[in-house]
Amino acid sequence: MAIVSPFNFPLEIPTLQLIGALIMGNRPVLKCASTVSVVMEQVVRLLLHCGMPRNDMDFFNGGGRSMGTLINSGVFRTTQFTGSCEVAEQLAKETHGKVKVEDAGFDWKILGPDVLETEFVAWQCDQDAYAASGQKCSAQSILFAHQNWVKAGIFDKIKALADKRKLSDLTIGPVLSHTTEDIMQHKDRLLSIPGARLVCGGTELTNHTIPKVYGAVHPTAVFVPLKELLKKENFSDCCREIFGPFQVVTEYDDSTLSSVLEATERMSHHLTAAVVSNDPRFITTVLGNTVNGTTYTGIRARTTAAPQNHWFGPAGDPRGAGIGTPYAIQMVWSCHREVIDDHHHIPSTWKPISS
Amino acid sequence: MAIVSPFNFPLEIPTLQLIGALIMGNRPVLKCASTVSVVMEQVVRLLLHCGMPRNDMDFFNGGGRSMGTLINSGVFRTTQFTGSCEVAEQLAKETHGKVKVEDAGFDWKILGPDVLETEFVAWQCDQDAYAASGQKCSAQSILFAHQNWVKAGIFDKIKALADKRKLSDLTIGPVLSHTTEDIMQHKDRLLSIPGARLVCGGTELTNHTIPKVYGAVHPTAVFVPLKELLKKENFSDCCREIFGPFQVVTEYDDSTLSSVLEATERMSHHLTAAVVSNDPRFITTVLGNTVNGTTYTGIRARTTAAPQNHWFGPAGDPRGAGIGTPYAIQMVWSCHREVIDDHHHIPSTWKPISS
Amino acid sequence: MAIVSPFNFPLEIPTLQLIGALIMGNRPVLKCASTVSVVMEQVVRLLLHCGMPRNDMDFFNGGGRSMGTLINSGVFRTTQFTGSCEVAEQLAKETHGKVKVEDAGFDWKILGPDVLETEFVAWQCDQDAYAASGQKCSAQSILFAHQNWVKAGIFDKIKALADKRKLSDLTIGPVLSHTTEDIMQHKDRLLSIPGARLVCGGTELTNHTIPKVYGAVHPTAVFVPLKELLKKENFSDCCREIFGPFQVVTEYDDSTLSSVLEATERMSHHLTAAVVSNDPRFITTVLGNTVNGTTYTGIRARTTAAPQNHWFGPAGDPRGAGIGTPYAIQMVWSCHREVIDDHHHIPSTWKPISS
Amino acid sequence: MAIVSPFNFPLEIPTLQLIGALIMGNRPVLKCASTVSVVMEQVVRLLLHCGMPRNDMDFFNGGGRSMGTLINSGVFRTTQFTGSCEVAEQLAKETHGKVKVEDAGFDWKILGPDVLETEFVAWQCDQDAYAASGQKCSAQSILFAHQNWVKAGIFDKIKALADKRKLSDLTIGPVLSHTTEDIMQHKDRLLSIPGARLVCGGTELTNHTIPKVYGAVHPTAVFVPLKELLKKENFSDCCREIFGPFQVVTEYDDSTLSSVLEATERMSHHLTAAVVSNDPRFITTVLGNTVNGTTYTGIRARTTAAPQNHWFGPAGDPRGAGIGTPYAIQMVWSCHREVIDDHHHIPSTWKPISS
Repeated sequence: MAIVSPFNFPLEIPTLQLIGALIMGNRPVLKCASTVSVVMEQVVRLLLHCGMPRNDMDFFNGGGRSMGTLINSGVFRTTQFTGSCEVAEQLAKETHGKVKVEDAGFDWKILGPDVLETEFVAWQCDQDAYAASGQKCSAQSILFAHQNWVKAGIFDKIKALADKRKLSDLTIGPVLSHTTEDIMQHKDRLLSIPGARLVCGGTELTNHTIPKVYGAVHPTAVFVPLKELLKKENFSDCCREIFGPFQVVTEYDDSTLSSVLEATERMSHHLTAAVVSNDPRFITTVLGNTVNGTTYTGIRARTTAAPQNHWFGPAGDPRGAGIGTPYAIQMVWSCHREVIDDHHHIPSTWKPISS
Repeated sequence: MAIVSPFNFPLEIPTLQLIGALIMGNRPVLKCASTVSVVMEQVVRLLLHCGMPRNDMDFFNGGGRSMGTLINSGVFRTTQFTGSCEVAEQLAKETHGKVKVEDAGFDWKILGPDVLETEFVAWQCDQDAYAASGQKCSAQSILFAHQNWVKAGIFDKIKALADKRKLSDLTIGPVLSHTTEDIMQHKDRLLSIPGARLVCGGTELTNHTIPKVYGAVHPTAVFVPLKELLKKENFSDCCREIFGPFQVVTEYDDSTLSSVLEATERMSHHLTAAVVSNDPRFITTVLGNTVNGTTYTGIRARTTAAPQNHWFGPAGDPRGAGIGTPYAIQMVWSCHREVIDDHHHIPSTWKPISS
Repeated sequence: MAIVSPFNFPLEIPTLQLIGALIMGNRPVLKCASTVSVVMEQVVRLLLHCGMPRNDMDFFNGGGRSMGTLINSGVFRTTQFTGSCEVAEQLAKETHGKVKVEDAGFDWKILGPDVLETEFVAWQCDQDAYAASGQKCSAQSILFAHQNWVKAGIFDKIKALADKRKLSDLTIGPVLSHTTEDIMQHKDRLLSIPGARLVCGGTELTNHTIPKVYGAVHPTAVFVPLKELLKKENFSDCCREIFGPFQVVTEYDDSTLSSVLEATERMSHHLTAAVVSNDPRFITTVLGNTVNGTTYTGIRARTTAAPQNHWFGPAGDPRGAGIGTPYAIQMVWSCHREVIDDHHHIPSTWKPISS
Repeated sequence: MAIVSPFNFPLEIPTLQLIGALIMGNRPVLKCASTVSVVMEQVVRLLLHCGMPRNDMDFFNGGGRSMGTLINSGVFRTTQFTGSCEVAEQLAKETHGKVKVEDAGFDWKILGPDVLETEFVAWQCDQDAYAASGQKCSAQSILFAHQNWVKAGIFDKIKALADKRKLSDLTIGPVLSHTTEDIMQHKDRLLSIPGARLVCGGTELTNHTIPKVYGAVHPTAVFVPLKELLKKENFSDCCREIFGPFQVVTEYDDSTLSSVLEATERMSHHLTAAVVSNDPRFITTVLGNTVNGTTYTGIRARTTAAPQNHWFGPAGDPRGAGIGTPYAIQMVWSCHREVIDDHHHIPSTWKPISS
């Protein structure tokens, strides 16, 4: 068994995977991104300190290419991969699908027609999009706000909260996977769409010492009209995941809900999602037309925080992995085996008959 | 969703798969081997007769190549495949693993040290190896008999039962996947192993009108010494699946049980298995060292008949499919989706805090 | 095992109980009300026709006193009783609690603050209170309507539907457990409460040939002010179950919801209930403060129809029975038995130590 | 909710019950035997120390009569009782069965026909019968040894182990529920049965300071012939529970197994049991003819130690309690409640129809 987690940021994911694999009796090989290996080594040492037998796992320190060679040798019964969808597909192809994948997270949130708890909902949007500088695969990447929420000033509230974030209190931090230039170019591309406008952020941080290889930007939201977003020439750009403090926001009304649902269907990966509404009919309509994995519903719905609390993983793909719950661990790190016990007496009336 | 089942023989498998897919709300495309399509069409007509809406499924009549093109177009979220392991691996590679597979069944049975119910056990061996002319993916392909069973004459009893089979009462039939020549060559290859000998069969049927493209052989068992079977130069031949009335038999004793377990581990596919013993310690030892899917234990253990009664499917591979039980259907034709409802009041003491 | 079901009306209940008991391997004795025994005998004959072995059950035809003697002899491991709460308590005392009970159903429905689907909700009220002439233990006995529903004319709509019911099309029928006089006296008692008024019915049927030992009344609803209903001198009368087409209705608003919840708590038996609302917070508040068994929520909520579809039974009492689902059957007609298998080798390092 | 546990000895039982009740959200009243209240108070203080809110439970210090008055006042929805079967039945009668009971444990062990691991099995018998001076409701009260085990010297081995026990190392202790005189009288009664003989013990301890109100005896086993044991005049004496280091032993063979099963059926309470055998057919036969709750099977089977590891409780009585597992806690301290959500749109084709 192999666990491959090239993510730069969240150590909890490979840790949860590792423990799940061990609990189910596997002997896993763990390979993390080289940028975090030094920290994961401490996790392994912690496990040893807690009594893990030394031969129960292997810790691989090396580049992706070397790990790829090892995987392609066929020694692993399965591989759990967390990372970009490009590498995930390549790995799936090379292993002929002997993988469980938790890849890209371009996660959506839909604010329904019923407006209540506006301060809380705005704050939750801020947390989902910008906490940890948006560097969570469950981060809110796009927000579909019902007209009623736009009238209630949700975009202004999001801006007000985003503008309070600053480097000095660590509510903003460096972006590990994109440079400032990358992010600014992406912002400009979106702003070139007719009707698009900046809701908040959009500029580089000032007075910082973050190296050029990383990103240093104010939490950013770009509004794109729903109609434009759905156009073939814009859709893939609007739904490109930026692993940083960046989101797209848009507006819909009762008559354009179907366009929102079409957008969620056209997105290629289905990790987390949120339906912010206390109207059970609205929630049912959205759930019935979407396939995302970890999906929060209700007026307090969020897109982040699943790994600590729930099953975390995508849906709608037979290769989708799950993290966090007993069922998730069992599904990824074990498999069903049917044992039928048949030990009792042969009935005295039995006769051998060929058929 | 696609169901691909190129098997020549058992219609029950694609039928069970089809109904499972429909029950879970999928719109499947069904493609069977062209040799059985005419029959499967009647199954589809039966479903329509029972009230299945006309648009709930598609029935594909065409060659494997055309189906491959369709699959590679990426329109299917998943594909369940039943058939040879070569095609299964190719399909897994081409779909990047978006498949659930039930492929080769080189299924083993181990007769443990405790000898009882000899007539029944011999009859069950006969049924598992030769019923339906051995053309079941759960057929008994290899028999590991403990010395005690050999002394009790198990091979003679198997021969006696096999010799009673004849074309005229349909206890023997044509083999669809191998010609007589193929089977005879395979038999000769095994008989060339030092110590190998014919237990029963080994000859072509006489007075038959079965066309040359099919096989027409007496139910056959070849004894190969365990030591020779494990040798690198013999193993893959001894463990080659013949989809017909053909089995390998061998003998072990308490001191060579570990060789038997090594053999089961080296086999590449792990579908059904049987541990014929009423000794719970023996059963536990074998179960603890093997990974087969549908595994019968107890003195009445069999390798066949799972699809009617139990989960039927391989284990030890994340792409393994299951057929027959609610859990199997849910695992193959649906997936876990975590919905968290969070609709209640915000506590009056709540304050927005950035982090 | 004994099944005692003195109910006059619904044959489905004892039938479901009987089949549940048989499925779990018991040999039950069935005793029904003498008024329905002639019909239950046909159910038993049907089971025999379907292959039930003749000795799998006993059918007791006799009075309650004789059955009581049999029960008190201690031959039964358990008794499932459906009927009045007085007999249930007596039986529980006499058997020292070796019973599972499904007794009185004074079932409530609460219409929440959100008004929608008014025609449907009114129709469902009519069905729950008056279908089968109210002779179901899940019938709606009391309706708590939010002020918003009263303003929307729910009482008028209920009256309009009730007034359409008539003997000639069998939407009204004879009441088996109460005479007309009983029901009229009960109505008059309730109408004597200050502020009480007749919503519909309240009169005897005309042009009928129903014998005097039965009841013959128009579907009746009496409005009682919530404040009066809660008074000690009125509560037990207002919450007296009439096994016929009779209900109490009342009105509340946001400020008096707690009085409604107090009323549901003070009722002594907790069978079915309905919370008619699509507001999840309202539903949660009511569910969190009540203990009824089969409880429907949502704007289409009903109090009746559980036995065909769901677990049907009371909650909040360790003697409560359940009918209808696998879990209900298992809980009433079987019990947990913990079997721990411990057959493996004694570790070679084991030594006997006294302690 | 009330927890009543008048047992003198095992504090773990009321502690487990208390925590189970609290976990499920009840507000329990705890009443222990006055002899152990001083210790249970420390358990309550420990819970408070761990953060239990002060109002979550009540601790009742008083006599059984006062507690009885409280219970009969009807304030408790349920009562879990651990203690003698006489008090249990009285309580069940008085509460009309609103109790869950874990009462007398006259627990049996059957040694099957297959003899292996004799040293271990003898040691386990010694532990089950005499550890904690036999003062566990799961203690081994009667041993049915197959002829093969008797020939293998199981009684001698039991005697050898029992004779090693002594006060000085605390492998023997005072008996709290019976005086020495009681136990000696019971022993003499059994020895008066034709064919009965002393296997070990049977005498008072010497050189001790245990007060007369307690018992002070050597671990005792009395052999009674199976035929005599089953006689009406002897059965109730042979199967009287002594809550101390006392057991009855007897012998059977293949032809008298049915007498053993008859004995297990005639015992009135069914707590724990053990079937010491690795023969699955023998185990199935015994399990299929008995109804005990916590039942160990396999050559290492025991009667004690369930509460730390498994569901612990009787079977075959609807009032039986369970202790220890999530399901046991849920069954005793909560109940099933069926909530059906029905919130969606009324189909446009719906029309109100009376029926």
